[in-house]
Amino acid sequence: MADSEALPSLAGDPVAVEALLRAVFGVVVDEAIQKGTSVSQKVCEWKEPEELKQLLDLELRSQGESQKQILERCRAVIRYSVKTGHPRFFNQLFSGLDPHALAGRIITESLNTSQYTYEIAPVFVLMEEEVLRKLRALVGWSSGDGISALCHYSIQKGAAFLGLGTDSVRVVKADERGKMVPEDLERQIGMAEAEGAVPFLVSATSGTTVLGAFDPLEAIADVCQRHGLWLHVDAAWGGSVLLSQTHRHLLDGIQRADSVAWNPHKLLAAGLQCSALLLQDTSNLLKRCHGSQASYLFQQDKFYDVALDTGDKVVQCGRRVDCLKLWLMWKAQGDQGLERRIDQAFVLARYLVEEMKKREGFELVMEPEFVNVCFWFVPPSLRGKQESPDYHERLSKVAPVLKERMVKEGSMMIGYQPHGTRGNFFRVVVANSALTCADMDFLLNELERLGQDL
Amino acid sequence: MADSEALPSLAGDPVAVEALLRAVFGVVVDEAIQKGTSVSQKVCEWKEPEELKQLLDLELRSQGESQKQILERCRAVIRYSVKTGHPRFFNQLFSGLDPHALAGRIITESLNTSQYTYEIAPVFVLMEEEVLRKLRALVGWSSGDGISALCHYSIQKGAAFLGLGTDSVRVVKADERGKMVPEDLERQIGMAEAEGAVPFLVSATSGTTVLGAFDPLEAIADVCQRHGLWLHVDAAWGGSVLLSQTHRHLLDGIQRADSVAWNPHKLLAAGLQCSALLLQDTSNLLKRCHGSQASYLFQQDKFYDVALDTGDKVVQCGRRVDCLKLWLMWKAQGDQGLERRIDQAFVLARYLVEEMKKREGFELVMEPEFVNVCFWFVPPSLRGKQESPDYHERLSKVAPVLKERMVKEGSMMIGYQPHGTRGNFFRVVVANSALTCADMDFLLNELERLGQDL
Repeated sequence: MADSEALPSLAGDPVAVEALLRAVFGVVVDEAIQKGTSVSQKVCEWKEPEELKQLLDLELRSQGESQKQILERCRAVIRYSVKTGHPRFFNQLFSGLDPHALAGRIITESLNTSQYTYEIAPVFVLMEEEVLRKLRALVGWSSGDGISALCHYSIQKGAAFLGLGTDSVRVVKADERGKMVPEDLERQIGMAEAEGAVPFLVSATSGTTVLGAFDPLEAIADVCQRHGLWLHVDAAWGGSVLLSQTHRHLLDGIQRADSVAWNPHKLLAAGLQCSALLLQDTSNLLKRCHGSQASYLFQQDKFYDVALDTGDKVVQCGRRVDCLKLWLMWKAQGDQGLERRIDQAFVLARYLVEEMKKREGFELVMEPEFVNVCFWFVPPSLRGKQESPDYHERLSKVAPVLKERMVKEGSMMIGYQPHGTRGNFFRVVVANSALTCADMDFLLNELERLGQDL
Repeated sequence: MADSEALPSLAGDPVAVEALLRAVFGVVVDEAIQKGTSVSQKVCEWKEPEELKQLLDLELRSQGESQKQILERCRAVIRYSVKTGHPRFFNQLFSGLDPHALAGRIITESLNTSQYTYEIAPVFVLMEEEVLRKLRALVGWSSGDGISALCHYSIQKGAAFLGLGTDSVRVVKADERGKMVPEDLERQIGMAEAEGAVPFLVSATSGTTVLGAFDPLEAIADVCQRHGLWLHVDAAWGGSVLLSQTHRHLLDGIQRADSVAWNPHKLLAAGLQCSALLLQDTSNLLKRCHGSQASYLFQQDKFYDVALDTGDKVVQCGRRVDCLKLWLMWKAQGDQGLERRIDQAFVLARYLVEEMKKREGFELVMEPEFVNVCFWFVPPSLRGKQESPDYHERLSKVAPVLKERMVKEGSMMIGYQPHGTRGNFFRVVVANSALTCADMDFLLNELERLGQDL
């Protein structure tokens, strides 16, 4: 195929299709997978938005482009994208690049089907059933229901969307480690009832986003039981800890929940997105709530058991296949491989904390119990000045400056945020299974280097 | 790497990672892309659920598996999955396999990022902006807002989810072609107002799911204008017709809508899922409605324009990158290539209809104006029996039997459904850009063959 030839359509030319896809896959392997996970390469190549628009030439035009141009575009897209699989990407709750999960995602994309009926997704309907069964078993339930679902990071947002109104959400006090105080929960339920409100749901968290805190589920479940309330556990981040015999005690009591949300795309690196909503209920609640019996899709006179058409359990209609990437990775790793990965993340987070304590410029927000390590970097000019009246204000300005420097150099990415009364601090998420102690050392050295003049 | 070796982790071994991914990609090319789109192969290989469970060995175990086993699993997953890119898959509104869109999906998966901030998705934030601008321009708007979104197939379901209640939804009459009757819309608004209700939204459809009907948007927009109502156009299926100079008149008036939903994963075959919600509004309505200013993600003291952090426009937090697949395909095809594809689908649908008229056993539900061809197959025993009292009841039982036969043979897949007062009829969706007249002829011949004894 001539490089300069425009390709209005490859349809009907399997040789050209294969040549294109093999060429693109070669670019993916070289640029995204090899360079994208190599510490000798940048984690990102920062460009100002206007410059990036020019570099990418985003405009969609009337004329199509040649294969050579398309391959150049693929290279540019990868080059200027952030490498979330890179060992120096600590910025989000997801990171790392699991090759089996990626293989599952590529197969999923090549098959391009929707999860709604057994008819067009026979493998994935059965596979999702098995994956959800496995997740439920880890929670401690021998039966129940579930579906891959959306994740909402805010109960307030969900309440607003559902028409309940944000005023219907009561925020229960947390202790200084970010854990819900069960006594305050009980107090607030009493207050709400006294005001004539009808509490119906308590949402506890296993692994909060910033601090990585685990709520005391046994005590919360006791309160819910006394008041007849539905207990939902948002274990989006912390759920994967259930795989670790050493650390799963952090979620003790989760088997008493009515529902659990768990995102294997976070700590398990299954790939965005992979979210499960698990229910202890066995009365087909999801279908009773969300079913609308669209006759063109869920015909009742099919020649197989229509209970396998799970599409009517969800709010949307079409739904991507999100189970294969997790299933394939799990088959390759086994429970044991995934457990090692979780345990290793805890070990490395602990290593990072201990190394911080040996250095002058690092102040922990708290001793972490999970793999979120939250700390302030105190630059030389602020050390020993804790008593000065503008200390906290000046300290809060450090993280944004360091973030800008690290991104513009492309050396690493760490998120920062204010939280409650605390000014901006860094949150390192130790989740990528390719991380080593050397990466932790690099992180500390790099912060010192970037902040030495502050 | 020895075939029998267990692979607890490939992390830190880039050679093994590359070998695995290249091997899997080879399987994908051979099984899903080449065989999966070849008419010499089956569109599906039917297995009863219990047998399929055994064949797939779905159980997730404690021990991981070898690379050889994992490759066998990949082959099995593809083998027993439905080939939605196959020229004999007419079952859903999506079909076909666009190699550029698939290339975009593979790159998206390898980069595995979330669309919420410029920080971690610089390329995709800018790219989505350009793609949405292009879609708005096709609607006829020079400014506005938008986001890739979820698609809901049911306004009722949406109303229930939002807490409005299904009783708040009034169903406006459609004519015998499935098009909304504007006079009835006006009448129902008047009735609702007389009852003290406050109508606020009219949802019209451009391309209904079953019949492919286009509502008369100009007349509906007139009604909305008179009553001050928000006009939403569900152009999930029909929106892509805007690319065709020949056929875009079907959506005349769409530029007067307040919001438009459009799924390029359907007629344009961008890959599941690719859904756009377009707004004429320029007052940042989405962010005002859905923003929750999570401080750990949308820090306001960032070093770049935080208006580029579009994640606060949507209800969920993390959001997959859905723009690259569409953008890359559009770059490769140009408007012109996509227009040819749309026009070709209309031509083939018309060919199919004319061929049906030449044969005895096919009765059209109506003359199609889009690429949904709806018809009954009348088997030999029912021909000329239209006057018999049980004709319709017997005819309604034909489609399920033929569907079972075609799926079990794996020769093709066509959806059927009852609709309103009409009994089960087939709906062929002519959308795959690889289709030819020969595929249309095959479809008719195959129905005759499968139904000859009925």
